[in-house]
Amino acid sequence: VAEETPRSSFGKATPAVVEALRAACGPAHVITSAEERRPYGKDETEDLWFDPEVVVRPRTTAEVSAVMRVATEHRVPVTPRAGGTGLSGGALPVRGGIVLSIDRMNAILEIDRENLVAVVEPGVVTQKLQEACEAVGLYYPPDPASRGSCTLGGNVAENAGGPHAAKYGVTKDFVLGLEAVLPDGGVVRPGGKLLKNRTGYSLAQLLVGSEGTLAIVTKIWLKLIPLPRVRRCMLVPFPSLESAAAGVSRIYRAGLYPSALEFMERNAIRFASEHLRIPVPGGDAEALLLLEFDGNREDAVEADLERAGEVCLEAGGIDCLLPDGPTKQEDLWKVRRAIGEAVKKTSVYKEEDTVVPRAALPALVRGVKEICGKAGISVVCYGHAGDGNLHCNVLRMDMDEKAWNERLPGVVEEIFRLTVSLGGMISGEHGIGWSQRRYLPLALPPEEIAAMRAIKRAFDPLGILNPDKMLPE
Amino acid sequence: VAEETPRSSFGKATPAVVEALRAACGPAHVITSAEERRPYGKDETEDLWFDPEVVVRPRTTAEVSAVMRVATEHRVPVTPRAGGTGLSGGALPVRGGIVLSIDRMNAILEIDRENLVAVVEPGVVTQKLQEACEAVGLYYPPDPASRGSCTLGGNVAENAGGPHAAKYGVTKDFVLGLEAVLPDGGVVRPGGKLLKNRTGYSLAQLLVGSEGTLAIVTKIWLKLIPLPRVRRCMLVPFPSLESAAAGVSRIYRAGLYPSALEFMERNAIRFASEHLRIPVPGGDAEALLLLEFDGNREDAVEADLERAGEVCLEAGGIDCLLPDGPTKQEDLWKVRRAIGEAVKKTSVYKEEDTVVPRAALPALVRGVKEICGKAGISVVCYGHAGDGNLHCNVLRMDMDEKAWNERLPGVVEEIFRLTVSLGGMISGEHGIGWSQRRYLPLALPPEEIAAMRAIKRAFDPLGILNPDKMLPE
Repeated sequence: VAEETPRSSFGKATPAVVEALRAACGPAHVITSAEERRPYGKDETEDLWFDPEVVVRPRTTAEVSAVMRVATEHRVPVTPRAGGTGLSGGALPVRGGIVLSIDRMNAILEIDRENLVAVVEPGVVTQKLQEACEAVGLYYPPDPASRGSCTLGGNVAENAGGPHAAKYGVTKDFVLGLEAVLPDGGVVRPGGKLLKNRTGYSLAQLLVGSEGTLAIVTKIWLKLIPLPRVRRCMLVPFPSLESAAAGVSRIYRAGLYPSALEFMERNAIRFASEHLRIPVPGGDAEALLLLEFDGNREDAVEADLERAGEVCLEAGGIDCLLPDGPTKQEDLWKVRRAIGEAVKKTSVYKEEDTVVPRAALPALVRGVKEICGKAGISVVCYGHAGDGNLHCNVLRMDMDEKAWNERLPGVVEEIFRLTVSLGGMISGEHGIGWSQRRYLPLALPPEEIAAMRAIKRAFDPLGILNPDKMLPE
Repeated sequence: VAEETPRSSFGKATPAVVEALRAACGPAHVITSAEERRPYGKDETEDLWFDPEVVVRPRTTAEVSAVMRVATEHRVPVTPRAGGTGLSGGALPVRGGIVLSIDRMNAILEIDRENLVAVVEPGVVTQKLQEACEAVGLYYPPDPASRGSCTLGGNVAENAGGPHAAKYGVTKDFVLGLEAVLPDGGVVRPGGKLLKNRTGYSLAQLLVGSEGTLAIVTKIWLKLIPLPRVRRCMLVPFPSLESAAAGVSRIYRAGLYPSALEFMERNAIRFASEHLRIPVPGGDAEALLLLEFDGNREDAVEADLERAGEVCLEAGGIDCLLPDGPTKQEDLWKVRRAIGEAVKKTSVYKEEDTVVPRAALPALVRGVKEICGKAGISVVCYGHAGDGNLHCNVLRMDMDEKAWNERLPGVVEEIFRLTVSLGGMISGEHGIGWSQRRYLPLALPPEEIAAMRAIKRAFDPLGILNPDKMLPE
């Protein structure tokens, strides 16, 4: 578990390769024109774009397998692509080659109400599955902000989270089985409609969060739970970032267990509220906590909310604002989900997806502000406080480009060093991908990176699957 | 990801090795006498016993690391040992060599009430942690029947389950971080007090359930949740095994979500009830379901129990028996937990730890009885019906040894083929270890076994860590 793989010399998507891909997936599903290829060269990560040489859109596992056999034979890099909403550049074809888009594999195959399991193809949009489940009284909790456009295959690749991870966990906690195509075209199918499985190493859990670097997921078995009948939220403005962050620990110390607990500083709310033209009460405060409780009994949920309100006021909260009905409640969530997009519209930015032990949030928020303040750079913080997962968006605003380019790397590094010193990690839910890989050695010791390289080599000895991602150069 | 590792030629625990181990752990913690070594040669798997050449009992991670460096240098096999309660022979030193017992690493290092995380050494007995958590209003759900003597390190190695996995999940769902020593003595420390972590591959999740074949766990970070304030159970006798098994699906279809849902056939109850001299009401019925609901509100839990009772009666249940108070309730659980031990006392046996989609339980129960009936062999079934996890104990009783030895392998194979044909797997929570490895190819395709071998090689190129376990010859 030691030395680095020597960089393979990759092949190109030659006419022979393109012909073989057409034979594998049908000519209509192989894209070669520069114009049609263009949208497959980007995701939601900053303004990055790389030109793929060819794009394939297989419909079946057998077709994915055939594509991988072609790629292996010609040593052409393959970048798998799901919804294209990633924030760490996992879907960017940084080495050109083949982009393998799973957008045509988008069927909900089954919602099994006896076993409480959904069986889906990887191109199913997360929200679509959630709505299909809700229609039969079931619940699939992981809900990244992009749930309206991201897909379950991407969620598995990134081990996506979202606000409700605070109570229910992240994607890994719901994956019961996977079907996946290995770089050489072989197919594995670990797990299934099984709530327990101790038959060999957990390949399914290893593939979750592997960012499409080990295998391409072609089918997913997801655990479902009964849909809670009641869901209520509350907004609590705080006079300072730190008092809001400190309020989080107090909520848990009081024995409360919210279904979501979000932190937003003033500018985050403001950008999103203006972007959507939805006013948010309490939006003038320095920071806000958005709490949600769920359950099956109205009185129990109301009691939790009331107790949480008391705790927040004791912690320095200014007020407890209860949205008036489901529409207002959903408005709040819309604003929350729009923050990322709104920040992006506001300024050139770099996002860091820090995660620390929940109780270390006040120290993280304070430290991030100090680091950015010293560098004269703006930063807006928001995120999943219940999980200790804070998104720090460093903003260029009207800073001149030269100063921005000079100062940014140092600021990012300082934020990450602080995060790690607090017992945290440099990504909570967005992954490492292309944009954070250079920072991985700040977070992980060489022994761990070496073990990860050994795993990568074990699955992908030619290094053709999603090259230059996650692991540092 | 293809060919099998050539078998390494292992070294012996020579005097030089023993001397090096004494230097690493202190002479008092290196056991060489045949008599003192003896108990380290067995676990709870059938009557298997293998003699280790030497036993070491390190106290610290640094000592574990030193032991592994000695083992690597001399290529001596190392079998890690936790509580010794395993049921698939994972702790058996089948190649002799060194048994590395973590029994001295048994401190609860912290119960962090702000972050809801326990930090423990691997030798902590599971029940001890549960009691320490309960004392401060917190809950660590995984509860294998052996919770009074198994340890958390063993639970991690086996990804242990237990009755409450039905609602709360298995060990993997609670592991937030691990510290582990690699075969070459290197130390990794993936995760920590983090509810989310997307920083590289999930080494922690890969190590959970790896049966001590990839690394030796030396510290564990576990997620805790608030302790439910109310817990109630109910016993429902059924006139047939199949009607009880079919009742399970109906409970979930009704939108109920029990905190435990156990299945026991008459003989299982009878053996345990006689063993403990605790009478069980309804124990004359062909099969029983033991249901438990938990929550924070008495009225809500009672309502769930009542609704579940109605569903069970509709499904053919004979009666709904509510234990009278916490003592009677705990008595029921004692009987349930004692089944394995009681069966063992009754007869020579072979246990299969089948798991199927919950709705396939009736077909599994019926099929297992048919297979054993045809072979003229007794079988007693019980287990975690809510998870589809059925323990099938095949019993020799008074069958002559020759017939038993002739018929048993075919019966086991037929049970496993049936399980797999129902979408199931050959182990739900006990692991593959030594006793089931020959059956792995019945459950997993060659591509999956090859991927697992590649992972094993990546971590343990010399093959010295827990050799001859999990993967077939």
